[in-house]
Parts: sequence; C-alpha cells; structure tokens
Amino acid sequence: MSADAQLLYLDDLPVGRRFATRTHSLDAPQIKRFATEFDPQPFHIDEALAERTFFQGLAASGWHTMAITMRLMVEGVPIAGGIIGSGAELSWPQPVRPGDVLQVHSEVLENAPSKTRPDRGRITLRSETRNQRDEVVQVMIGRLIVPRKVVV
Amino acid sequence: MSADAQLLYLDDLPVGRRFATRTHSLDAPQIKRFATEFDPQPFHIDEALAERTFFQGLAASGWHTMAITMRLMVEGVPIAGGIIGSGAELSWPQPVRPGDVLQVHSEVLENAPSKTRPDRGRITLRSETRNQRDEVVQVMIGRLIVPRKVVV
Repeated sequence: MSADAQLLYLDDLPVGRRFATRTHSLDAPQIKRFATEFDPQPFHIDEALAERTFFQGLAASGWHTMAITMRLMVEGVPIAGGIIGSGAELSWPQPVRPGDVLQVHSEVLENAPSKTRPDRGRITLRSETRNQRDEVVQVMIGRLIVPRKVVV
Repeated sequence: MSADAQLLYLDDLPVGRRFATRTHSLDAPQIKRFATEFDPQPFHIDEALAERTFFQGLAASGWHTMAITMRLMVEGVPIAGGIIGSGAELSWPQPVRPGDVLQVHSEVLENAPSKTRPDRGRITLRSETRNQRDEVVQVMIGRLIVPRKVVV
C-alpha cells in the first residue's frame, strides 16, 4: 500500500466535509516557553503580573494557540502535498488558559478548481479550536492550495 | 521617569502613524526547530524533500514568520497594556527562506474609541513583514484593543 493511499486531493474535499483532530493538553510551562521566545508580554509569561492585566490571569499567546492548531491539523487533515496556506483570517473569542485541552474541528466551506492550472485548486477551510468545555477559543478561516489527482 | 513614559495610548495612535521594528535573521536550524514542534511538513524540515514540493526548497512555516513578526512587534510597537489582538487577517505573498532577514513595518489604518467603554478603543494595524530585498513576505491586518489614558 502506498503511503499516499489515504491522502486527500481536491475532489476528496467537497463543501461540508469535516475533520476532527486529536487533542493537545496545554500547561503553564508550554505557555511561558512559547511566549518567552515569540510573545514576551506579562500576561503570557508571569502568573502574578498577568492578574493585573486585561486577561486577569495567565493566558496563551494567540499565536501559540494557532501554532498548536496547525500541529493538530498537520496530523489530522491529510491533504496530498501538505497543508499549504496562502492566507487566513483569525479570531480569538476567548482566552486559552493553563490546563486547557484543545481540539480542532474543521469544515470545508469552498472548493474551487483552478481555472488555469488543471493540477490544482483551492479550498477554504473553517477550523474551530475548542477547549475541554467545547468553548471556541479560536476560529481560523484558511485558504489552502490543494493538488488535483491528474489522470494520465 | 516612569516605565510608562514611552507607552502609547489610543490617542497616540492616529491613522497613518508608522512603526518599523528591528530585524531578525532566520536560518535553517530555526526554521526546522519551529516546524518540528508546530508544523512538521517536509518543506519546513528537510532540504532534500523540500526540493520536490510546492516550495522547491526549504521554507519557513507561515506561523513561524508570524511568531517572529509578533516578537518584533512586541519590542517595536510599545502600546500601553501590550499588544492584545482580537483578530487578524494574514497572507503570505512569497516564501521565507533560510538566510532571510526579516523586519516589520506597521501602519495604523483605523482608530476607533469604544462607544461603551471610555477606558479603551480599537485600532486596525497593517503590518508588512519584509525580507532583506524589501520584498513583502507576510501581510497582517490586526485588530488590537488599546487603552485610553483616563483623565482623573
């Protein structure tokens, strides 16, 4: 069996197709480690300081939530050629906290074969990242480039 | 002098105000390390495999480019209360490669005091991440929550 056997091409991704990933458990050390490198603001790196900020307690960087979301999608949304985004819209309806368990639920919103390239197309994928209470902590609308299975 | 002396409030961020950050030099080990944790796809972690993909060579994860952009902005855009985003739109016009030197150029597009909360408002900030050839590798339109200086 080829390693490609399970991979998805444009025609395998009709509007409405859904995916759910595995979960990822987030703790304070992970939150602080990511933020120390990429988003060193008090509400992401220090519990005591975070209490006196907008977030009223330690919260993950939105870009950390996004990075974890990407990791889960790479494993859980097996598109041929990989997950290649040309752009995305993001929102964070509520904070991600230490102890949260994240899971991504994705749904295809659009499927558009290229008008000029027979070997590819584009999908729009809406991905909700939810916590253990099923609250949505991030919505990402991603535009992905997807190969077509070319018949030879 | 207070540590707050240089911090910017809503009224300090009129439409058209610009910022430029310091630069960040990206190399292959950084690209692979981020991708191994958050975006483990061949074109982000293995030069030889990357040659045969859409990217035709090693390229940084777009989320890595975004994370570096955030780091640069945290240091270079000194908003009081921090850089707190409620959402963002992203696009990646071209790949980021090992050896690229990134810098962020930001401009305020909108400034809107809250209609209900006298202590805050919202700005829209457009941030271009450019490489050493001044090519735009990422555009982010971010919506930020910004405090107002309250007169007491």
